[in-house]
Amino acid sequence: MTTTVWPRLEGIAYGGDYNPEQWPREVWDEDVRLMREAGVTMVSIGIFSWGLIERREGEFDFTWLDEIIELLHTNGIAVDLGTPTASPPAWFFANYPEARAVTKDGVALGFGARGMVSHSAPAYRTAIARIAGALAERYGNHPAVALWHIHNEYGVPVGEDYSPAAIAAWREWLQEKYGTIDGLNAAWGTAFWGQHYEEWAHVGAPAAAPSTINPAQKLDFARFTDHQLRACFITERDAIRAHSDLPVTTNFMANQHWGCDLWAWAQEVDIVSDDHYLWAADPEGEIGLAIAADLTRSVGGGKPWILMEHSTSAVNWQPRNVAKRPGEMARNSLSHLGRGADGILFFQWRAGRSGAEKFHSAMLPHAGADSRVFREVVDLGAKLGALGELQGSRVQADVAVLWDFESFWAQDLEWRPSEDVTHAERIRAYYERLWRDDITVDFALPGHDLSAYKLVVAPAQYLLTQADAANLTAYVRGGGTLVVSFFSAVVDEHDAVHAGGFGAPLAEALGAWVEEHLPMREGETAGIRFGDTTLTVDVWAEDLVVTTAEVRATYDGGPGDGKPAVTRNALGDGAAWYVSTRPDAAGLQQIMTAVYADAGIVPSGTPAGVETIRRRGDDADYVVVINHGADAAPYETTGTDLLTQEEIRGTMVVAGGDVAVVKEAHHPH
Amino acid sequence: MTTTVWPRLEGIAYGGDYNPEQWPREVWDEDVRLMREAGVTMVSIGIFSWGLIERREGEFDFTWLDEIIELLHTNGIAVDLGTPTASPPAWFFANYPEARAVTKDGVALGFGARGMVSHSAPAYRTAIARIAGALAERYGNHPAVALWHIHNEYGVPVGEDYSPAAIAAWREWLQEKYGTIDGLNAAWGTAFWGQHYEEWAHVGAPAAAPSTINPAQKLDFARFTDHQLRACFITERDAIRAHSDLPVTTNFMANQHWGCDLWAWAQEVDIVSDDHYLWAADPEGEIGLAIAADLTRSVGGGKPWILMEHSTSAVNWQPRNVAKRPGEMARNSLSHLGRGADGILFFQWRAGRSGAEKFHSAMLPHAGADSRVFREVVDLGAKLGALGELQGSRVQADVAVLWDFESFWAQDLEWRPSEDVTHAERIRAYYERLWRDDITVDFALPGHDLSAYKLVVAPAQYLLTQADAANLTAYVRGGGTLVVSFFSAVVDEHDAVHAGGFGAPLAEALGAWVEEHLPMREGETAGIRFGDTTLTVDVWAEDLVVTTAEVRATYDGGPGDGKPAVTRNALGDGAAWYVSTRPDAAGLQQIMTAVYADAGIVPSGTPAGVETIRRRGDDADYVVVINHGADAAPYETTGTDLLTQEEIRGTMVVAGGDVAVVKEAHHPH
Amino acid sequence: MTTTVWPRLEGIAYGGDYNPEQWPREVWDEDVRLMREAGVTMVSIGIFSWGLIERREGEFDFTWLDEIIELLHTNGIAVDLGTPTASPPAWFFANYPEARAVTKDGVALGFGARGMVSHSAPAYRTAIARIAGALAERYGNHPAVALWHIHNEYGVPVGEDYSPAAIAAWREWLQEKYGTIDGLNAAWGTAFWGQHYEEWAHVGAPAAAPSTINPAQKLDFARFTDHQLRACFITERDAIRAHSDLPVTTNFMANQHWGCDLWAWAQEVDIVSDDHYLWAADPEGEIGLAIAADLTRSVGGGKPWILMEHSTSAVNWQPRNVAKRPGEMARNSLSHLGRGADGILFFQWRAGRSGAEKFHSAMLPHAGADSRVFREVVDLGAKLGALGELQGSRVQADVAVLWDFESFWAQDLEWRPSEDVTHAERIRAYYERLWRDDITVDFALPGHDLSAYKLVVAPAQYLLTQADAANLTAYVRGGGTLVVSFFSAVVDEHDAVHAGGFGAPLAEALGAWVEEHLPMREGETAGIRFGDTTLTVDVWAEDLVVTTAEVRATYDGGPGDGKPAVTRNALGDGAAWYVSTRPDAAGLQQIMTAVYADAGIVPSGTPAGVETIRRRGDDADYVVVINHGADAAPYETTGTDLLTQEEIRGTMVVAGGDVAVVKEAHHPH
Repeated sequence: MTTTVWPRLEGIAYGGDYNPEQWPREVWDEDVRLMREAGVTMVSIGIFSWGLIERREGEFDFTWLDEIIELLHTNGIAVDLGTPTASPPAWFFANYPEARAVTKDGVALGFGARGMVSHSAPAYRTAIARIAGALAERYGNHPAVALWHIHNEYGVPVGEDYSPAAIAAWREWLQEKYGTIDGLNAAWGTAFWGQHYEEWAHVGAPAAAPSTINPAQKLDFARFTDHQLRACFITERDAIRAHSDLPVTTNFMANQHWGCDLWAWAQEVDIVSDDHYLWAADPEGEIGLAIAADLTRSVGGGKPWILMEHSTSAVNWQPRNVAKRPGEMARNSLSHLGRGADGILFFQWRAGRSGAEKFHSAMLPHAGADSRVFREVVDLGAKLGALGELQGSRVQADVAVLWDFESFWAQDLEWRPSEDVTHAERIRAYYERLWRDDITVDFALPGHDLSAYKLVVAPAQYLLTQADAANLTAYVRGGGTLVVSFFSAVVDEHDAVHAGGFGAPLAEALGAWVEEHLPMREGETAGIRFGDTTLTVDVWAEDLVVTTAEVRATYDGGPGDGKPAVTRNALGDGAAWYVSTRPDAAGLQQIMTAVYADAGIVPSGTPAGVETIRRRGDDADYVVVINHGADAAPYETTGTDLLTQEEIRGTMVVAGGDVAVVKEAHHPH
Repeated sequence: MTTTVWPRLEGIAYGGDYNPEQWPREVWDEDVRLMREAGVTMVSIGIFSWGLIERREGEFDFTWLDEIIELLHTNGIAVDLGTPTASPPAWFFANYPEARAVTKDGVALGFGARGMVSHSAPAYRTAIARIAGALAERYGNHPAVALWHIHNEYGVPVGEDYSPAAIAAWREWLQEKYGTIDGLNAAWGTAFWGQHYEEWAHVGAPAAAPSTINPAQKLDFARFTDHQLRACFITERDAIRAHSDLPVTTNFMANQHWGCDLWAWAQEVDIVSDDHYLWAADPEGEIGLAIAADLTRSVGGGKPWILMEHSTSAVNWQPRNVAKRPGEMARNSLSHLGRGADGILFFQWRAGRSGAEKFHSAMLPHAGADSRVFREVVDLGAKLGALGELQGSRVQADVAVLWDFESFWAQDLEWRPSEDVTHAERIRAYYERLWRDDITVDFALPGHDLSAYKLVVAPAQYLLTQADAANLTAYVRGGGTLVVSFFSAVVDEHDAVHAGGFGAPLAEALGAWVEEHLPMREGETAGIRFGDTTLTVDVWAEDLVVTTAEVRATYDGGPGDGKPAVTRNALGDGAAWYVSTRPDAAGLQQIMTAVYADAGIVPSGTPAGVETIRRRGDDADYVVVINHGADAAPYETTGTDLLTQEEIRGTMVVAGGDVAVVKEAHHPH
Repeated sequence: MTTTVWPRLEGIAYGGDYNPEQWPREVWDEDVRLMREAGVTMVSIGIFSWGLIERREGEFDFTWLDEIIELLHTNGIAVDLGTPTASPPAWFFANYPEARAVTKDGVALGFGARGMVSHSAPAYRTAIARIAGALAERYGNHPAVALWHIHNEYGVPVGEDYSPAAIAAWREWLQEKYGTIDGLNAAWGTAFWGQHYEEWAHVGAPAAAPSTINPAQKLDFARFTDHQLRACFITERDAIRAHSDLPVTTNFMANQHWGCDLWAWAQEVDIVSDDHYLWAADPEGEIGLAIAADLTRSVGGGKPWILMEHSTSAVNWQPRNVAKRPGEMARNSLSHLGRGADGILFFQWRAGRSGAEKFHSAMLPHAGADSRVFREVVDLGAKLGALGELQGSRVQADVAVLWDFESFWAQDLEWRPSEDVTHAERIRAYYERLWRDDITVDFALPGHDLSAYKLVVAPAQYLLTQADAANLTAYVRGGGTLVVSFFSAVVDEHDAVHAGGFGAPLAEALGAWVEEHLPMREGETAGIRFGDTTLTVDVWAEDLVVTTAEVRATYDGGPGDGKPAVTRNALGDGAAWYVSTRPDAAGLQQIMTAVYADAGIVPSGTPAGVETIRRRGDDADYVVVINHGADAAPYETTGTDLLTQEEIRGTMVVAGGDVAVVKEAHHPH
C-alpha cells in the first residue's frame, strides 16, 4: 500500500520556498548552513524568476540557477524546481500588450504586482512552453532536482479574464461543448430576457452588464476559466515531460480558492500539493486547516501529498495578521501530516526585505536565527526526521462530505433566495461538527462510489444531476446513511430548476420534496421541535412535502410554523436524513448524534480540542495526536511514541499545546 | 363617472406575464387549461421575445406568436401584447456596437442580462419603430388583443447613459432648452469652480469627474434621461397607432424607481399600469404598496389603472426573498384594487426553469398546480370574478401629499447638509402616519389645483419654484391646511438657493423662514416641547425666524435649543404648519392629530392594521376592507358583502388576515 | 524677531475668498460696504475664474477683474490675487483632451467639477505659465494687490494621475533618481514576484493590477506625484516673479490631505498659508485644528502664516455638516491666531447660490447681514483689529512631535501587519494627550536639529533612515527625552526592512529591538502592568528583546503575555522610552506623566478644555486663552487684556466659550 511520493526523497520532506535571487551571494552560504541545522531536505526555487532567467525574449541565462542548484545539491538539499510562469516578465507585456488580463469592466491589468496575464493569450502559451521546456532541458536530469513545481497557485490573483483572447477561446470552447448554437440556446435558456443567439460570433463573456447575467452562461464561464488555467498547466507539464521523467506538481489552494475544480486538476498532476494559511480572524483556524488537508488528500484519491506552503507564524495579506503562538506551527504541521501530507514546506525560507510580502513570516525571520521561530523550525525539523516511516501511509475515513466545485459555483451566483446561504457556510458547519467529534472525513463527489462510507453528508449540493442523484439514492438503498441539508438538488448542470418541485431528484431517497423555500429575515430565528427539545434555527425554512419519510422535527414558529423540519426516510438497507433549515451548533450536534447512531458511527471520545488522526502503513498504524487545548490530555494506546521512542501501554499524556505520534498495531477497519 | 379601461374586457382583469417561448409546445395546452381553472382573463406576452420574432435584422417570423395568440383567443383569454424592445437581440448589438449604453466610468455595457441599450442611439430608435410597427400591422386588429404593452419598466436596469450618442442628444436637448450658451451658464451657475462654457460642443455629460459635478447639470441630466426614455416610448406608441386603435400602456415602477417623471409619462399612455413588489426586509410592506398604488392612481388623474405585475409569493432579486404567507397575496391584490386598480396581474404565469429569475414565484409555481400558491391563485380569480362591478369606480381622497420627481432628483444629489435626509424617508414617514390613521391619500404636484383637499402635506419639497410656492400660499389663503416639513422651498428649478433665506418662497404662507440649518450628529437626539409633552426628534434642527406664525413647539436641547421647532400660521381662511425637525413616530402622531383637527379630518377609527378604501361607482360605493392583523376586526356597514353576497346591517366581522368588499350606498363626500 | 508677513498689510489680516463673478454688478457695492462694516482687510479673488479671463485660448479679457480690484482698492481692501489654475476652462480640455487626469482604472476624468487636469501634461504647464504671467504682468505692481495666491489646495481633488503624460514624466523622474535600471531594480527589490526590469520603457505607473503592487514603486509614485504638483507651483511662481515682487503663497491642507510633503513645499513659498475645516463628526474638532495650525507653523519654520480658509459655520461636503455654535468661530479663529496665524480668512465672503458648495457657510450667509453669523463676523473683525500688535510674534514650544510625510505614505500602504494601525491614529493620540495637558507642540522631521526640545515624540516613524536614526540617537545622548511608539524604524527609504530585527536602527537609543510583531484580533484587549496599575491596551503587542533598557511595563494577557511592553533606556545624558502597544487614553496619560517628569516638563495646570498658547513678540508675550468649556475658567496673569484693555494682576476670568488675549512681560524660556 505504501507509495513513494517522489523518486529522490526518503521520509517526510521538510523545507520551503527559497528565493536566493533576492539576496547577495554571500547570504547563500549562510542559508544552506542554517537549512542543514534545521533539517531541511527540500526547497522550492525559481518560482518568480522568469525575468532573471530569460532577461529578453528567448535569451536565457542560467548562471545563477546553476550555481544555487549545485550549492544545494552539495549540501544534500533536494530541489523542487519551479517554472516561473505565474509572473511573466516586464518585457513580455511590452512585447505582447494584448496578453494582459482584462477585468469585467474592461480594464487591462498592469505590471507591478504579479500574474496579470491572460491565460488564453497565444503569446503566453508559447512563452510558457519555451521557458518550461528550457528549464526541463537543462535540469530535467540533474540529480538535485526531485520535483517540478509548475506555476504558482493557479487562479490567484487572476482567474476570470475578459480579454479579447479569452473571449475568442471562450467561443471555441462553447462551440466544442454545444455543437450547435441552438444547443447553447437550450442549455442557457436564452428565451428568458431575450438572450437568444443566432450566431456564435454574438456570444460574449459575462462582463459588465446592466443587470444579472444569465446564470448558465456564468456557470459555463467558471468552467471555461478553470479549463483555460488547466490547459496552461498541461502545456507546461508536457513541455517538461519531453525532457524529464521527474514528477510534476502545482500547488493548489484547497478551501482557500474555489476557482479550480481540484478533482479534475488532481488527474493531471503526478503529486498533489497544497498551500494553506490560517484565517487569523478565526480563533479555531485548525478546523479550516483540517478541511483543506482532507480535501487535498481526497482530490488526490487518498495518496500522500505535499504541503507546499504554510507559514511559520503570521502572514501579511489579512486585515490583522496574527502571529502563531509557541507550538502552534508544530500542531499545524502535524495536523497536515496526520491528514496525509508527506512533505511539510513553508513560504518561505528567509523573510524578504522588500516587496509586498516582507511582513510574511518565514523559517528564518527578520530577527535571524536566534529567535523563537527559528528554534521551533529546528525542533520541527527534528520531529519530522523521526517520523520518516510514516511516508506513504494512508488515512482512512468512514464519513464522506460531498464537495462539488460545480455546485458551489452555481450556488454562489447572484439572485438566489437568500444571501445568507452560501456553500461554504454549511460545509464548514457540518465539517466542524464532525471535527469536534474527532471523526475523520473524506471529501467526495456525488457521483463517486460511496459504498465504503458509513455516512455521507451533503451540506451544499444545490446543483445535482439526475445521474448523481440516482447514485446517492443507490447508496442509501445499499445500506448507507445520507444527510442532506436544505437547498439541495435544486438545479441541473445548466442551473435549470429540476422539474417536479425543488429537490425532486432526491425525492425518492429523502421521501420528501420542497414545495416552497421560506427564507427568514435578517436576524430572525425560529424553533424546531426535535424529540423533547426545541432547537434554534435561522436563515431558512421550507414548505416540505413529506411522502414516505418520518418527521423527526417540526417547525415551531417562523415562516414554516407547524411544518416538517427534519425528516428521516428508510430506503432499502439505508436511511436518508433531510435537514430543511439551519440549526445552531448545539442543535446540529443533537441531530448529528441521532444520525451517527443510524450510521453506526461512534465518536472517539477524545477531550474537546484534541484531534487524533490515524494513518495506516503497511505494517502499522500511526496515530497523530494534537492537543489544541491548554490542559494535558490523555490518549489510550498500546504502542510507541515515535517522538520520544517511549513504549506505551495504557494512557499517554499529551501536554497542553503539544503533539504526539504513536505507532500502533493495525486498527481493525 | 365609470370609465371603460379598455375596450375588450369586462370586469377586473386577471392574469400575468406569460412566456410560452420558454416552454415546449405541449406545455401550452396545460397552461391554457390551468389559466381557465384560475379564472385568468388576460395575459401579457412577447415582452422579451425580440430575437425570436426578428431573428436577423429585418427578417420576421411570427409563426409561434400567431399560434399562441390563436390558442389564447380560442380559450377566451385576452392578450396584452408586449413590444420586446426592453431587450434588443444579440444581432442588434453586433450590428450596432455603438448603441450600447455606457456607464459614468466609460464602460460600454455588454449583452447577457437585459436592456443594455443606449436609448439615444439612432439605430435603436429605428429598430424599435420597425418591430413595434410590424407587430401592430400584424396584430393591431386581432380580436384577441386587448392592450399594447410597450417595452418593460423604462429606466430599469439602464437609465442614465453616457454613450457618445447620449452626449450628442444631450447637447441638442440643452440647446433647445436654453437657446444660448449664456442661458446655460446662468442657469447652471458656471461661474462657480470655473465651469464657464463658450461653446455648446464643450458641454459634456456628468460622467466620471474628480469631485462633485455641478448639481444643476446633474438635475438637467436627470430630466434629459427621463426625456430620452419617454421619447423612445413615443416612437413605439406612434408606430403602433399607425396600425392599431387599441389602447397603449407601459408598466411603471411607482415608488420603486424614481428616474421617470410619472406625471409626464401618464400624459402619454392610454392606460396607466404599474409593477409593484414588496420590500421583504420591511415587515409592513403593505404601506409601501399603498404608496405605490396611490401614486399610480394619482399620476393617472384618478382613472382606473392596471396592476401589471406583482408576485404571488417571493421575488428573487432582494437580499432575502421572503415568501408571502397564506392570504397575503389576496390582501395585496385587494389593496391595489381598492386603490383603483381594474386589473390584477402577476409576473408571471409559470415559473421559469432557467435564467436570472427562476426563483421568482409565479401563479403556477415550480411545485405545480397541487400547491398552496396555485390554490390561492384560483381562489383570487374567483374573488375578482365576483367584483366585476367595481370596474371604473373611482377612489376619493381628502388629503394630498406632494410628490414631485424633480424635487426628489435635486434633493438627493451630493453635498447636502446631512446625508440622513432623503426625500423618500420623509415621504414614507408622513404617508405612514396617514395610513395608520386609515386616511386615503392622493399624491399631487405643488402646482396642481389643490383646492378640493382639506389637507396638503409637503414632506420633501426641497425644490419649489416661486410659482408653485404662490400656488401653495393661495391654497392656504383659500382655506386649506398645509403641512410643510423641513428642508423645503430651498432651491429653484436650477437648484439655486432662493434669495431671502431658506424657505423664502413659503415665508408668507408659513409666517417663518430659516436662518440656518442645524443638522445633528449621527445618533444625536433632542426634545421639542409640544403642549405638555416632550417629543423626541433627531437628524435635523433649524434656526427658524418666526414672523407671523404661532410657535407650537420649541427645541429642548440639541443645536436648536430654545428656538421654535413647530409653527402654525393662520393665513386667510386656512393655516400652514411647519415642522422643522424629524419627530419620531409617536411625536409625529401628536403633531398630525393637531393638524387633523385644524383641517377637519376625522380618522376612520378602524382597528390597527385594518385598511378601508372606498371606491365610488355610478350607483354605489365599494368599500374594500383588508385586515392585516391576526385578529378578527369589525366593520360597521349597511350593505352587501360582494364576496359572500350576504346583506349586512350593522357589524361585519373580517377574519384575521382576510379581506372583504362591501357595496354600500353612496357616502356623502 | 518680528517678521513682516507681507509688505502691504498692517496687523492681522481679515477676510475671505470673494467671487464677484458669481454675482451681478450691483451686488458688488453691497459687498464692499458690508466688508468694511466687518473690518475686512483682504480678500482672495480670481481663484476659479480662468474661463472668464481667458475665454478662448490666448484671448484675455481683464475688464471685470480691473473693475473689482479698483473697487476693492478704493475701499481700502487689499487683494490676495489668485491664479485660476486649479480649474482649467472647458476650452482647455476640448483643445487638449490628452491633458485630462486618468484614474488607476484608466478612466479619463471629465469636466463639470473642478481640477480634472493632468499636472504632468505639457499643455497644462504651458497654459498655467501663460495665465499666471498675464495676471502678473497686469496686476504685479497694482497697489491693491498684497499677495499672490497660486492655484488652490494642490493635490485635491486630483493627486495621483495615471495618464500617458504622467507615465512619461514618471519614467524621466525615475531615470534621474536612479541613473541605471539596475539601481531601480535594487531599490524596489524587483527580484520579488518577478518584477525585474531590463528597460526604462517597461516601467509603468502603479495602476490597476491584479494584486498588491510593489510598495517601493508606490512610495516613489507618491514622491513623484508630490514633485509634479510642486513643479506646477514653481512654474507659476516663476512666471509671476518675472513681473512682480509681491510675496507668493499657495493654500496648504495641513492634516487634511497628506499627499503633499509640506516640508518641501514650504521652502518654495514666500508665505505659508493653510485651509482648515473642522471634522464635524468629532465633537472635539479643536484638537484636529490645533494639529493643523501647529503643523502649518512648523513647516514654515515657525514664521507667522495665514489661515487662508476656514468656515464661519457648517461646511457642505461632510456626511453631516454640523453648524458652529455661537462663539465657536471666534474660538477657532483665535486658536489659529495663537498658534501663529497672522491672517484669518474664510471660504467665503458671500454664500453662493449655485453649484456644489452652496450649502457651505460664509461670512455673509444666505440669510443676509441680519443674522447671527454676520454679527459674529463683525465682532471677530473688531477683535482682530484690536490684536494688530501680535503680528510677527512667534510661538515657542518645548516638545516636538515627529511628522514625516514619507513615513506616512509608506506606513499606510497595503499589506501591513494590522489594518488597525495607521499613522494618523497614533499621531492624534499622542498629540491629544499633549493638548489636554496644554503643552504647546512643534512638529519636526527626524533629521532636524532637535536639541532645543526637552521632549521628542515619534508616534508613527515606520520609515526611518539610518542617518535619521543616528540623529535621534544623538539627540538622546545629548540629553533629550525621546518617546517612540510601536512599528517604528521598520523600513528604510525604499520600504525595505532594516537588517537586524525590527527597529534595529533605534536599538541603541531604545536599548531594545523587536523580534516579532504580535497584532491582536479585532476587539481583543490585554493589560500591561505599569507600576501598581494595569493599563488596558489593544491592537498591537510585540515580542520585544530588551538589551540595555529598563522594563517599565509588562504585558498581562494577550499575545505578548509576560513580555516587556514599555521600556526606558538611559543613554548619555538623556533617555528613550518605547511603547510597544496601544494604551487607551487613561493609560497613555499615566505613561506620559512619567515621561514628562523625565523631560522636565510641567503641564500648565489649566482647567480641562482651556487652551493657552503663548506668542513671543519683540517686547512682550501674548497669551491667547481659549475656553472651550461651558463654565468660566480662571487664568493667572499680570498683564493687559487686549480685547478689553483691562489691566490684570492676578486672576482673569474667561467666560465659558469665550476667548481672551493677554499681553504679558516676556516669559522666561
